[in-house]
Amino acid sequence: MNLNIVLYQPEIPQNTGNIGRTCVLTNSRLHLIKPLGFEITDKHLRRSGMDYWYKLDVVYYESFEEFLEKNRGARIFLATTRAKKFYNAVSYEKGDYIMFGRESSGVPDSVREIFKESSIKLPMIESTDRSLNLSNSVAIIAYEALRQMGFPGMK
Amino acid sequence: MNLNIVLYQPEIPQNTGNIGRTCVLTNSRLHLIKPLGFEITDKHLRRSGMDYWYKLDVVYYESFEEFLEKNRGARIFLATTRAKKFYNAVSYEKGDYIMFGRESSGVPDSVREIFKESSIKLPMIESTDRSLNLSNSVAIIAYEALRQMGFPGMK
Repeated sequence: MNLNIVLYQPEIPQNTGNIGRTCVLTNSRLHLIKPLGFEITDKHLRRSGMDYWYKLDVVYYESFEEFLEKNRGARIFLATTRAKKFYNAVSYEKGDYIMFGRESSGVPDSVREIFKESSIKLPMIESTDRSLNLSNSVAIIAYEALRQMGFPGMK
Repeated sequence: MNLNIVLYQPEIPQNTGNIGRTCVLTNSRLHLIKPLGFEITDKHLRRSGMDYWYKLDVVYYESFEEFLEKNRGARIFLATTRAKKFYNAVSYEKGDYIMFGRESSGVPDSVREIFKESSIKLPMIESTDRSLNLSNSVAIIAYEALRQMGFPGMK
């Protein structure tokens, strides 16, 4: 397995579908922290990613606490627009976890505080209040990590 | 302007919407080659990207020929799953063009032939017939080019 992608309470099924597709195509595990903003059988999820959802290595958690409990010792990076460090300024290793917050509001302050020293951000033009689409953010950071690792097992 | 993103006959409005958002946030121009699989006023496009569509530097072309005619001398890379070279194996320069084919079928052989020497691909696990979502592919390659350039004007 190359990477662990963690979504904290994702809201939009198409995004999670596309992220699942990226995980399958990069040999990464997807971790979904509930509550989710959709049913996992939702037709939008099927449409975006369901035809290979059965190939996806996916783990569900009832809460953030359960996620932490079950992944003790993991090296976790948090992607947040409030980070100071660019996502390409860290050295990624196989098995690293990269966590992403909600589409609408990221993660709560209490969660951000935990990962203060391992927060990363995507540089952007400061022209709008909006940031990149969630599935795009995941794809960019995952591929930077994979690039650094030499794209293990990928052709 | 940092990059030129070219979509050859895109079919899915949500993808073009998300790509427009990526272009605004990276100071890139979007080139759309018709026919498009949607109306530019389509509600899906609004939902995905329309609230900053008015900030987007976008050019429309009636045909591929018109695109070539109006961008003579451009340095154009074609992203295609049939390329041999990885997308990160080339050196990008400010103002480069990166072209992407249709979601369903990429570009015709005649177009691929033109860019044979400047084709690039995204490495993936060979586990399914599907490839990455179009807006994710654009985001990954654009951010690799921008990373090489030192993220001009981005914070």
